[in-house]
Amino acid sequence: MKTLVDIARTGKSTSLIGKIAKKENIDKKLLIKLISEGKVVIPANRKRSIKSPCGIGKMMRVKINANIGTSSDNIDLRGEIKKLKTAIFFGADTVMDLSVGGNIRKIQNSILAHSSVPIGTVPIYEASINAQKKYGSFLRMSKNDIFDVLKTQAENGVDFFTIHCGITKKTLNCLDNYPRLMGIVSRGGAMTARWIRKNKKENPLFEYFDNVLKIAREYDITLSLGDGLRPGTILDATDRPQIAELKLLGMLAEKAQKNGVQVMIEGPGHVPINQIKRNITLQKKYCYGAPFYVLGPLVTDIGLGYDHISAAIGSGIAAAYGADYLCFVTPAEHLKLPDIEDIKQGVIASKIAAHSGDLARGSTQAWAKDKMMSIARKKRKWQKQIAMSFDPEKARMGRASSIPKVKDACTMCGDFCSMKLMDGK
Amino acid sequence: MKTLVDIARTGKSTSLIGKIAKKENIDKKLLIKLISEGKVVIPANRKRSIKSPCGIGKMMRVKINANIGTSSDNIDLRGEIKKLKTAIFFGADTVMDLSVGGNIRKIQNSILAHSSVPIGTVPIYEASINAQKKYGSFLRMSKNDIFDVLKTQAENGVDFFTIHCGITKKTLNCLDNYPRLMGIVSRGGAMTARWIRKNKKENPLFEYFDNVLKIAREYDITLSLGDGLRPGTILDATDRPQIAELKLLGMLAEKAQKNGVQVMIEGPGHVPINQIKRNITLQKKYCYGAPFYVLGPLVTDIGLGYDHISAAIGSGIAAAYGADYLCFVTPAEHLKLPDIEDIKQGVIASKIAAHSGDLARGSTQAWAKDKMMSIARKKRKWQKQIAMSFDPEKARMGRASSIPKVKDACTMCGDFCSMKLMDGK
Repeated sequence: MKTLVDIARTGKSTSLIGKIAKKENIDKKLLIKLISEGKVVIPANRKRSIKSPCGIGKMMRVKINANIGTSSDNIDLRGEIKKLKTAIFFGADTVMDLSVGGNIRKIQNSILAHSSVPIGTVPIYEASINAQKKYGSFLRMSKNDIFDVLKTQAENGVDFFTIHCGITKKTLNCLDNYPRLMGIVSRGGAMTARWIRKNKKENPLFEYFDNVLKIAREYDITLSLGDGLRPGTILDATDRPQIAELKLLGMLAEKAQKNGVQVMIEGPGHVPINQIKRNITLQKKYCYGAPFYVLGPLVTDIGLGYDHISAAIGSGIAAAYGADYLCFVTPAEHLKLPDIEDIKQGVIASKIAAHSGDLARGSTQAWAKDKMMSIARKKRKWQKQIAMSFDPEKARMGRASSIPKVKDACTMCGDFCSMKLMDGK
Repeated sequence: MKTLVDIARTGKSTSLIGKIAKKENIDKKLLIKLISEGKVVIPANRKRSIKSPCGIGKMMRVKINANIGTSSDNIDLRGEIKKLKTAIFFGADTVMDLSVGGNIRKIQNSILAHSSVPIGTVPIYEASINAQKKYGSFLRMSKNDIFDVLKTQAENGVDFFTIHCGITKKTLNCLDNYPRLMGIVSRGGAMTARWIRKNKKENPLFEYFDNVLKIAREYDITLSLGDGLRPGTILDATDRPQIAELKLLGMLAEKAQKNGVQVMIEGPGHVPINQIKRNITLQKKYCYGAPFYVLGPLVTDIGLGYDHISAAIGSGIAAAYGADYLCFVTPAEHLKLPDIEDIKQGVIASKIAAHSGDLARGSTQAWAKDKMMSIARKKRKWQKQIAMSFDPEKARMGRASSIPKVKDACTMCGDFCSMKLMDGK
């Protein structure tokens, strides 16, 4: 069966392409071209119908992803569905289910059933947990165990897979030769590295990448090539292991593109402000125009409890320089499994970063919003400002908690409201 | 009497210079040189002894300011003292008292008495309020009314003054010729503009800038040249009125420096990410090396309720490119007078931005912190991580609310903690 890329390469459109072109206010032919070149992806498993699909990549508005999912300490399906709905309500364009606790299958199916946005997973998690149950350790999982999970999840409708195929004997060798402070901080990356070292075998997702592509083609799944060697501290940022893996992911991205499979590249992690531009430039250089999906990045390691802010700074800059897709970071990062409030805070911080990136990239849709808000502010149209905010309930409560004597001003300036002063000229 | 700049220009040190050199881990002679050139200021009224003074400018760590103060809607001296203490507790390097409600004199004296950090004010506020009481309108205040307040506040120990001397007949003319969406959004700027237009006279703080310098010299007060024409929406950013005022402020800064008066320049405001670098470059070009004090900047206008995050993005970038001093923005911005929780959130967001800027600028002190945190993280030293965070109480409560079965991991990953997995190799 033809994939979206195959169809785009014939110059034809689909209803999905039409929908995205309209949403992004972009010419359909141009969008078809971008998809055919691998510069835009639209994650959508052909088995699933997504109410709110999204385009990720060049000339698209910057998208954000929210991670949800159980852990062995915290298994609450209803809670996860609430997180899903919270994330979507506050504007997550996609959601990843990173569950590693409880009945993964049941949780994933429920999330897929409840989600109006594309859903991504990291199949190695389910494979590891199955192997732990079956053999007592995830280190004993076989190549087939891994690919069985890929097939099951594909069949169930997952829209995009994070595949840690950049952790290989060679890149691990690079890590040994160029030691870093934090080693591997990616969960899937660490699992894969342990597996390779224990079994003295190559990473099946790399060795049998053709099988990955086959499954991706069959269900039209978008691949997100995971950065298992992403820096987990700014001290490791942009080091040799990270770049060695990025180059490898670039080669695999090219292969996916040639096979008509949609593909994007995951990026760091922890990066100081002055290295972010370079990280984007390197990704663009090595990865054949594949969209860049950055995980933050956090611009400092010391923001514990406020990492959504450290990440918003990094995400805003990354988006301005060309990152296409931002993974949110919550205030719970490095601390605990996020709760619903954490999810909300993470999504809003990430939305602000994405929107700031859109503005910097000259999105007319984004600039129109800021103009509308500013006019409402100048005219002291408070209800309009509140309605336009990322979290109208919070803004409404804020204003209600502090009512000014001068009705159309606020309690900051009262009579000395600069807008009012200037109106009186 | 000699000012700090006068003394530095003789090559001599003072106990204040010694203290700052030690704090910043910088050679005393180099610091003396930077002060003599006007590239570093140390706000400290000679009438006041400050427990925690700070250096602002080149080669200093990036500093942050928190604004507190009453409004006509909200007059609570005890509340303001609590805000002061909260701001200092979470790391504000300076505090500005922007009170425009109640007994300004009493509030300011109390804040000065309670503050361990430098205190700044905007004297035109008190002058306006006095005039409103005396004449029924601030528009009737005289030149002498303004300078009387400067003298009183100087005598009482205020360490730095924001002076809106960039609002002049000429710059207002520029504003008329190049209309913008939001006009004037600076409170002091709007008051001054109204006064000039109503009285058809020049801005006394510009016309009699020599008098300002005289008072500043007498008390060794640092001047912060306010940007009354700062953009209040990204649509107005970097426009002609803003730059016209910046050039004028640069000329006045040079005059202050020649007179041995410490001076810094205030900057925007609302600026999209892609224009921040240019704003810093222009300030450096026009302002003779005077430290740059940016108000955020907010990178989008639509963050109502979360403007501390919009500002953290802008502040981090500005600091990385060379801004020296960041004015915090709270979640209450554009909405209401901030409460104590708002002050806390604003300070922490701004501290993260300042620290990220320090990292980008290569501060060894800053990098040492991130290294220490990362080592604690790798070793799962939870108490150390919590103690090092910006808000240990929040981090402690976060962890306590979600206790992992695997004691040294967290509830995000449990057994699959990448740090633990990699330790097991």
